[in-house]
Amino acid sequence: MDRSNPVGQLRAAVAAFAKEYLPDVDRWCVALSGGADSLALTAAAAGLLPTTALIVDHGLQAGSAAAAKTAQNQAKELGCVGAEIISVTVGTAGGPEAAARTARYAALDSGRGQAPVLIGHTLDDQAETVLLGLGRGSGPRSIAGIRPFDPPWCRPLLHLRRDTTEAACAALGLTPWRDPHNHDRRFTRTRLRHEVLPLLEDVLGGGVAEALARTATALQEDGDVLDALAERALEENRGTRLETAPLTELPVAVRLRVIRGWLLAGGARNLTSKQIRAVDELVTAWRGQGGVAVGGDRAGTRLFARRRDGALVLEYAPI
Amino acid sequence: MDRSNPVGQLRAAVAAFAKEYLPDVDRWCVALSGGADSLALTAAAAGLLPTTALIVDHGLQAGSAAAAKTAQNQAKELGCVGAEIISVTVGTAGGPEAAARTARYAALDSGRGQAPVLIGHTLDDQAETVLLGLGRGSGPRSIAGIRPFDPPWCRPLLHLRRDTTEAACAALGLTPWRDPHNHDRRFTRTRLRHEVLPLLEDVLGGGVAEALARTATALQEDGDVLDALAERALEENRGTRLETAPLTELPVAVRLRVIRGWLLAGGARNLTSKQIRAVDELVTAWRGQGGVAVGGDRAGTRLFARRRDGALVLEYAPI
Repeated sequence: MDRSNPVGQLRAAVAAFAKEYLPDVDRWCVALSGGADSLALTAAAAGLLPTTALIVDHGLQAGSAAAAKTAQNQAKELGCVGAEIISVTVGTAGGPEAAARTARYAALDSGRGQAPVLIGHTLDDQAETVLLGLGRGSGPRSIAGIRPFDPPWCRPLLHLRRDTTEAACAALGLTPWRDPHNHDRRFTRTRLRHEVLPLLEDVLGGGVAEALARTATALQEDGDVLDALAERALEENRGTRLETAPLTELPVAVRLRVIRGWLLAGGARNLTSKQIRAVDELVTAWRGQGGVAVGGDRAGTRLFARRRDGALVLEYAPI
Repeated sequence: MDRSNPVGQLRAAVAAFAKEYLPDVDRWCVALSGGADSLALTAAAAGLLPTTALIVDHGLQAGSAAAAKTAQNQAKELGCVGAEIISVTVGTAGGPEAAARTARYAALDSGRGQAPVLIGHTLDDQAETVLLGLGRGSGPRSIAGIRPFDPPWCRPLLHLRRDTTEAACAALGLTPWRDPHNHDRRFTRTRLRHEVLPLLEDVLGGGVAEALARTATALQEDGDVLDALAERALEENRGTRLETAPLTELPVAVRLRVIRGWLLAGGARNLTSKQIRAVDELVTAWRGQGGVAVGGDRAGTRLFARRRDGALVLEYAPI
């Protein structure tokens, strides 16, 4: 790959992605913030297929409407067949970053029609996501990062560095929008980018972002196999009760995934690995202990996993 | 568990470990550096079973012989039935930390006789090891950290924090040796401990060491299942040639492990995930490419994995 040709690298990445994952697609959308990643992606995408830019205005910063308008004009100049500004209202659930993400994906999903949506996440975003997941500590699933293809979301730049998209914008004469939030130290991701990753690169001798991205890929592959094993085991055991006897025959990695799948199917939400392991103890370390709260509260009640007559059951109890 | 009673916590941890992993053992060794972790471990171990302290003098620092002698006296005062100083010569292979570790484990293995060896690794060591592995970027295996039981090595304190061993030493009136290397910023582990982990705790909001340790446990469990699947697939396909056709039927996570196992059995050494994936491309993206160097050089030759007639083969070629 020609490192002196960032525009060519981007085009090649988007073309290879389309060939592998979207062979039958004849038009697509691009999520365009106006930043370097999504602007360079829009340029590459519009050169390959009829492209509609979806520009989400979060309304969180002064001048966001003007920034959206600028991005819309850039999309048209880059040859997009459409460029739609979608204004959203950002809630508060899960903190400011999570709330903005939730609102953004909902807007993109409503604006895309039937088309897939290309998103400009880079290897740098992947590395930051892995570190964020490490802090969450909910096991391999939380550090497996972002998937390149998670329909309708497509991330063709996930193996390219952010400096490549910056260089592509410069080569194309595009002026990207600089999100002030990208330098606001109140945001965890900003601090990971500007403080933690440079320190890790220094201490561990370089290559950390690439190492984190490789780890994410391997964890996705590992998780796919283990999830499939768990799904097969759950198929044989599906119902409102989950019998504990067959569970004890399974290796712990599979058993924990069976329990997780059964809990989610029964209405549990935002499960942590601690909760799943506490439910697992109802199976493997039963000593008459009480139920485990597993999220999924509704209408003044709380959902508990309990053991009854040799099986796990889910029950709502008043809060 | 009574947090105000660190000595009790340590004793309970060692007793529970012995019950789970060493039910038939009637004596054991402890690797004693004289630092807080191994000193507290020695105290707990000697209260449970006849204990021999193995004190490795690396000879790397002025005063190391005196420190070893102090540790030997402490071991006797703590009721050890033996306290043996083993002097080693540390080489240079793999850098100073790896060379010291290699020499230390070889000495412990030669000094232990038939007994298992308790090692004072704590949750803090585990967290640092996971971060070290992240930088290595060789996938889930490199961030799965230290195993609690990897015969003959036993790590009963792997779920306890370092401050618990410090508190136990204080409660027992023991003065631990302070290794000056633990504050020497030339060592990667020291910088992870004093710079990276505190920053991560600050940025991610605490609980990072515990999260890293939980992740390591889950990755060990996941890896055990996937390694067993790969071993079964390799059994069906064992030989100097590894046929590519059956490999293509396997999920990528299993296929990469089959290839790794076959390469190691054939003499490959120090494999990285990059090398294993390059060999995998001989299977899944064959376009007539050349061999992949896979370590294991000997006598002026280098070991290559190549594809011949639809199978992988290993061949030595002159360097």
